[in-house]
Amino acid sequence: MDCNHKLKTDSKHICSNYHEAIEFIGRRWMGMVIYSLMDGPKRFSELADEINGISDRLLTERLNELIKEELVNKTFLEDSSKKVEYALTERGMSLKKVIEAILAWIAENEK
Amino acid sequence: MDCNHKLKTDSKHICSNYHEAIEFIGRRWMGMVIYSLMDGPKRFSELADEINGISDRLLTERLNELIKEELVNKTFLEDSSKKVEYALTERGMSLKKVIEAILAWIAENEK
Repeated sequence: MDCNHKLKTDSKHICSNYHEAIEFIGRRWMGMVIYSLMDGPKRFSELADEINGISDRLLTERLNELIKEELVNKTFLEDSSKKVEYALTERGMSLKKVIEAILAWIAENEK
Repeated sequence: MDCNHKLKTDSKHICSNYHEAIEFIGRRWMGMVIYSLMDGPKRFSELADEINGISDRLLTERLNELIKEELVNKTFLEDSSKKVEYALTERGMSLKKVIEAILAWIAENEK
């Protein structure tokens, strides 16, 4: 692992972030919310429809956590001051490789 | 994402496993336990020493979950019927690419 071959201070820092990062993306429904936003910005109701089984409360919570971590932007749509849309930021979109690695791992182990 | 371009039955299956997989590896301390086993088999006490902050109860719980999912093997050491060692299976070791993707994502976003 890269982490072990760096300077100790660096590796400690990165490992600590690894710990936070893996548990962040592994929070209940978090992976599904990120996945669902990968193909473009969506309204709250679109996300709720697409992610089968998530409650409005948990969807709100996960979206707020993603916004706080600057992985998602909340934008007011031009035609309304009430209608909002959620979109992955560049940082959020770069999680695509992590998701792809998980999908590849699943596919590999289903053989 | 691969998942959307497959047959609907397939994608539903893989997405469902994606949901389970990401929340499994994201369980509290799970990522750290997997990470710690990446450089070779370890005794319980070695893992407990290396993973700063984990309780014996949670380490036991995570190891048992990993064994149940066939990601870790528990082996009795030859010189004793009490001493055991934990090692990633091939399936567990293949999570390395997921961990590397997370480390790469962190490094990329620290710039």
